[in-house]
Amino acid sequence: MHPPPGSGPGKGRIEALSDGVFAIAMTLLILDVKVPALEPGQEALLPQKVGELWPRFLGYVVSFLITGVFWVGQHVQLHYVRRSDRLFMWSNIAFLMLISFLPFSTALLGQYPLQPVALCVYGVNLTLAGLVLYGQLLYASGPGNLFEPGMDPRFFALGGQRILMGPAVYSAAILLAFFVPVVSLILYAVVPVLYILPGRVDRFWHHRPADRP
Amino acid sequence: MHPPPGSGPGKGRIEALSDGVFAIAMTLLILDVKVPALEPGQEALLPQKVGELWPRFLGYVVSFLITGVFWVGQHVQLHYVRRSDRLFMWSNIAFLMLISFLPFSTALLGQYPLQPVALCVYGVNLTLAGLVLYGQLLYASGPGNLFEPGMDPRFFALGGQRILMGPAVYSAAILLAFFVPVVSLILYAVVPVLYILPGRVDRFWHHRPADRP
Amino acid sequence: MHPPPGSGPGKGRIEALSDGVFAIAMTLLILDVKVPALEPGQEALLPQKVGELWPRFLGYVVSFLITGVFWVGQHVQLHYVRRSDRLFMWSNIAFLMLISFLPFSTALLGQYPLQPVALCVYGVNLTLAGLVLYGQLLYASGPGNLFEPGMDPRFFALGGQRILMGPAVYSAAILLAFFVPVVSLILYAVVPVLYILPGRVDRFWHHRPADRP
Amino acid sequence: MHPPPGSGPGKGRIEALSDGVFAIAMTLLILDVKVPALEPGQEALLPQKVGELWPRFLGYVVSFLITGVFWVGQHVQLHYVRRSDRLFMWSNIAFLMLISFLPFSTALLGQYPLQPVALCVYGVNLTLAGLVLYGQLLYASGPGNLFEPGMDPRFFALGGQRILMGPAVYSAAILLAFFVPVVSLILYAVVPVLYILPGRVDRFWHHRPADRP
Repeated sequence: MHPPPGSGPGKGRIEALSDGVFAIAMTLLILDVKVPALEPGQEALLPQKVGELWPRFLGYVVSFLITGVFWVGQHVQLHYVRRSDRLFMWSNIAFLMLISFLPFSTALLGQYPLQPVALCVYGVNLTLAGLVLYGQLLYASGPGNLFEPGMDPRFFALGGQRILMGPAVYSAAILLAFFVPVVSLILYAVVPVLYILPGRVDRFWHHRPADRP
Repeated sequence: MHPPPGSGPGKGRIEALSDGVFAIAMTLLILDVKVPALEPGQEALLPQKVGELWPRFLGYVVSFLITGVFWVGQHVQLHYVRRSDRLFMWSNIAFLMLISFLPFSTALLGQYPLQPVALCVYGVNLTLAGLVLYGQLLYASGPGNLFEPGMDPRFFALGGQRILMGPAVYSAAILLAFFVPVVSLILYAVVPVLYILPGRVDRFWHHRPADRP
Repeated sequence: MHPPPGSGPGKGRIEALSDGVFAIAMTLLILDVKVPALEPGQEALLPQKVGELWPRFLGYVVSFLITGVFWVGQHVQLHYVRRSDRLFMWSNIAFLMLISFLPFSTALLGQYPLQPVALCVYGVNLTLAGLVLYGQLLYASGPGNLFEPGMDPRFFALGGQRILMGPAVYSAAILLAFFVPVVSLILYAVVPVLYILPGRVDRFWHHRPADRP
Repeated sequence: MHPPPGSGPGKGRIEALSDGVFAIAMTLLILDVKVPALEPGQEALLPQKVGELWPRFLGYVVSFLITGVFWVGQHVQLHYVRRSDRLFMWSNIAFLMLISFLPFSTALLGQYPLQPVALCVYGVNLTLAGLVLYGQLLYASGPGNLFEPGMDPRFFALGGQRILMGPAVYSAAILLAFFVPVVSLILYAVVPVLYILPGRVDRFWHHRPADRP
């Protein structure tokens, strides 16, 4: 209960605030999927009307997955953080600000999927969130000295590469938005798949007991 | 504070994110129950207007209970999980995606309670959520090796049976939706009752101190 | 990390789910307070328009306090609970269902403050929530055997009396709603004040270190 | 699991409830940023329409940061609190009531940025939140005796000064609102910057391991 001397406020509440913001950002989009309103006697049209909602359903799924990508990333990173400081807290608030902006930029893209400005806003939002997460990794593993002691430097290197994979693809997608919007759109859809696949960084946290000597 | 070597990120944040999504999914439906708007001088109509809201009240209660069924199920299952990996995290995000879809499918059913398409969407949503939960049990108790060591295999068997009880009834309800919609509707209403009743799996976690030797 | 044998799933997630539902129920009502919309050039009317919102502001404050009363009550009670079972989990889901219904019944009362049906719905909602909390106390301290061992029986007796204070006043308010609605309304406003004042039950948890021998 | 004798209900759930309210208050404002609706064929206007949303974007960012200021402040203060009592719980509920009022007062200011009444409501909301936080510090470090034993009195003094910095500037802004509204607006925008910068109080929690003897 008594914090060790010299340690700052812990990370528990940063995690709790983050989980709250993620949970809200993830579920807000279902509010955009409205139950079709039909006049009495027209119920025969319901299957067609529900079918017409498919872009909304797709937008809901994609948005949920992309928010999930950031949740997993921040979760794994914070797991190895042992304490926080003011700069880390505020970088996390900036990160959450970008996360809770996702329902807007996803809705914009869902409504105008081939408009360059919608593709741009979406890409800039995702790129900034990725860069803030990367900046946190650099700060916490470097000057901030916030991670557990004795961590393998390859964890930071591989984790950083994995985080930057997103902004790299997003930057390409932003540029392509002005020339071939449909390619830009496809790039955005591919990124969550890349992140759901396991990566080399997982070796550092995905040990099964059988692996231990 | 230092995680044991070889253990991945814990389950604490999976639980926190889940509780956030469940809390929002549970409370979103009250937004569908609107206070009746009456012209000044017509207040005598208020009791009648409030009475006419009963299908909304009923939908609110049923939806809350069904979400509660999944919360209890995931809660008990996660309780015995000792660590997580990337696949488990993502299966949980898929599970939460289906949970936060419930306000939509419940609202659809509440508005069109005897339309086959509404009964289908609702049943498919519930069936998928049950199957993901069952898949998590299989993975965590098998290849993932995520549960506490030394757990009784009957816990997994009985827990799995209990989880599959829902999808079994829901599948029947989906088929019946096209022939006798009212029977389909009754089947959906029965399932929460089945789950609220204690089951044989409870023996493995519902021990009272007096039971101990 | 390994739960002691014989203990069921803990209370941590019951608390987390409850805090999520309470937080949402508490903040939903601010959505009812709308920024006044004025035509360009009519800004001089803004002070008057904001002033006219006072019943909304009052409803927001009262609703926040009443939800707070239940949060404090459940918080203190759960604090001494050491484990949970299926019945306790479900009684808690019923309790949360009544809590997240409060935004509706408060909004109904805010709009029709002197209509018997609004006063009734509000009173029944509060009474049921209080009775479920009381039932949990009886069950957990009796057949459920869920509390910490060695607790002072006076804690249960005084805590129970304090919980029942609400339903007692609410029942009177429900009856009076049909004869003198304004008295009923005043009774509702008085109850949060009663609960905010310290009670005799506090002696059992409000010990200052100086009190210890 | 067994609380030490004499300790009241812990602070864990106060933190959890607070994080829920903060997360909701932070994300509610994105609901005010609506995707522009365009007729088919008018998509060329989208960049302009998105650009016109800039005051909404700005309001979102400022509101997020100001809520973040209070979150960081309450987080640091609660971190050193070791137990709670009824008065502390209720002062925290009052604090959360003011926090979840922020989406309204920020929206009011966003719509009428130079109207004295909007500047006043906003300033009074922020001032009250700051004063409640300060009152909690006084109570917990004095009569309530709620902090960890052996804390440096300079922590309370510097922390208190830092908290009061806000209400001091806000009071000036409220007065200036009636004479030079634009100066009042600028003062509000400056405060989050002041709080994001590190302060002397950080010395008491921002120790790096290298600093230790």
